Amino acid sequence: MTIDPILVAKPLGIAALAFAVSVLVMPVLISVLKKYKMGKSIRDAESAPIMAALHQAKAGTPTMGGMVIWATVFAIVLSLEGLCQLAGAQSVFCQASFLSRGQTWLPLGLMAAAAIVGLVDDYLNIRRIGGGKGGGLRERERLFSYGLIAAIGAWWFFTKLGWDQLHVPFVGTYEIGWLYIPFFLLVIVSTSHSVNVTDGLDGLAGGTLLATFAAYAIIAWSQGRYDLATFCAAIIGALLGFLWFNINPADVFMGDTGAMSLGTALGVVALMTNQPLLLPLIGLPFVLESLSVIIQISSKKLRNGKKVFKSAPIHHHLQAIGWSEPRIVMRFWMISFVLSGVGIVLALIDSI
Amino acid sequence: MTIDPILVAKPLGIAALAFAVSVLVMPVLISVLKKYKMGKSIRDAESAPIMAALHQAKAGTPTMGGMVIWATVFAIVLSLEGLCQLAGAQSVFCQASFLSRGQTWLPLGLMAAAAIVGLVDDYLNIRRIGGGKGGGLRERERLFSYGLIAAIGAWWFFTKLGWDQLHVPFVGTYEIGWLYIPFFLLVIVSTSHSVNVTDGLDGLAGGTLLATFAAYAIIAWSQGRYDLATFCAAIIGALLGFLWFNINPADVFMGDTGAMSLGTALGVVALMTNQPLLLPLIGLPFVLESLSVIIQISSKKLRNGKKVFKSAPIHHHLQAIGWSEPRIVMRFWMISFVLSGVGIVLALIDSI
Repeated sequence: MTIDPILVAKPLGIAALAFAVSVLVMPVLISVLKKYKMGKSIRDAESAPIMAALHQAKAGTPTMGGMVIWATVFAIVLSLEGLCQLAGAQSVFCQASFLSRGQTWLPLGLMAAAAIVGLVDDYLNIRRIGGGKGGGLRERERLFSYGLIAAIGAWWFFTKLGWDQLHVPFVGTYEIGWLYIPFFLLVIVSTSHSVNVTDGLDGLAGGTLLATFAAYAIIAWSQGRYDLATFCAAIIGALLGFLWFNINPADVFMGDTGAMSLGTALGVVALMTNQPLLLPLIGLPFVLESLSVIIQISSKKLRNGKKVFKSAPIHHHLQAIGWSEPRIVMRFWMISFVLSGVGIVLALIDSI
Repeated sequence: MTIDPILVAKPLGIAALAFAVSVLVMPVLISVLKKYKMGKSIRDAESAPIMAALHQAKAGTPTMGGMVIWATVFAIVLSLEGLCQLAGAQSVFCQASFLSRGQTWLPLGLMAAAAIVGLVDDYLNIRRIGGGKGGGLRERERLFSYGLIAAIGAWWFFTKLGWDQLHVPFVGTYEIGWLYIPFFLLVIVSTSHSVNVTDGLDGLAGGTLLATFAAYAIIAWSQGRYDLATFCAAIIGALLGFLWFNINPADVFMGDTGAMSLGTALGVVALMTNQPLLLPLIGLPFVLESLSVIIQISSKKLRNGKKVFKSAPIHHHLQAIGWSEPRIVMRFWMISFVLSGVGIVLALIDSI
């Protein structure tokens, strides 16, 4: 068994390029954001007392840094596509760099839509416009916007591409017909919202996403979907460039435009590899973060305001019991790293 | 092109096992070390004023945590070997788990030797016995011990295995005869010492080694040296379990027994993949750390005590100019991660 080196060099080369672009552009964006005072509004002490106390120092740090991540991915994918058209589709360059439509245009399109909604939400939050807590979209407006994007994606996959299969690892693949649409919706909405919830400590969502995308890059690669793997690699590189400035103490946050677009892209990639049921395992930190919020809110409502966690999501609980921020973040990274390894093994054994 | 999943599942499975063992054993070792007051002696203010000021808080943190790393690797390799003998060499189990002698016993043997010398040195340092600064072996005693281990390895590779080839990436492979012995010596001694120099901030050497071993695991794997890749995977898993407790604020340090044994193993792995010349690139952080010390000492001697860095190695300089410890560590991790990707690409393209 020998591997064609270009198939490895392509995604890794694109990742390196994306890293270089994003790490160079990021400081420019940071200074622009600072100039226009695009700082995150931290929720006030009344609605979330422990979080407010823990995070007062972060008020004013520029947000919307996620723009650089998706802008880098789009710029690289589109310029490679353009260069390839110039060089001719049969050229060596094209074979090495082309990101085919079928594999990457769908995640790219959905990612773009989520990025734009997130950007609007971030802007409203900063300017304290809108009905959400501390400014921004109301929860039902958010849910509707992202749900609509997911629904369009689901409809496209089901009607245009004829996707209607649900693969259950180690069990089998089932044709679930129109049920594919609500399933698709569920995967995208829950993934993007969970990633957004995780985005609460310096470097937390970024590093965890890095490991998760790496797992799906390798899964896609092992299925022969080299272009999808390369798309993931572009995200990984751009994310790493962002993370350089996002680690503690952060110079910039990714914002909803980062978390929602990356979460959406992650959901689509999981669906396209036909391994979305491995996502709750590979992305377990996102699941736990989301669950901790659901448990906390349910407990408050059902048990007369009694809380389960000192603060939710769980990363704030860990802070409240005395873990330092870097310690929480680095341990989440390590858990993600291990789960990614386990997920890759399961996907490969499943593929036998 | 299809990949036999067992060839991926084997190293990743071993890594997961090693992680589980090491993360469970580590707390036990930490409490034992604390009980016997096996804390690191921090160099006094006179010989290294800035470092002493920065690190006073770390005095008393148990060291020698590296024991768990190599003990886990040895335990896993030896028990798999034993189980395989029981099951019969032709069994499925053996094919999946066996770590063949030719590929792994040599790095294992040299790693063990370095681990023992490191352990002695750590113990002397803690008890403040011996002629080194703050206790421990003198520099010439250290150099002699590790040099002797490397020399035995070099002799074994050259005479018993007939290794005498130097591969220059993208240029060619040359038979260098007996010159292979000093070359081997240089690789092992410089790698192990550089790793040891890097081991000065919480999680710094651990995370950087993780990325470097991951790169060589993939390079070895792509060469069909699956057992060597699995050996690297065992180290990666065990190292990750250690890192769980070593990140800021650290509960334990790896000590010389960790840094020297892992550095030695890294050098041997690089030599066995015939890609030692990629090591200065993949492990660039180690090179920069070593170089910063050499530059600082040379400058002090040649320029009447004038310093180039505020403090050496360079991670202390970065601390002195105001970077927080987690920021330095996480940025080193990211650089290592990127360099590992670049190194893998170069090795694969070189292999065409």
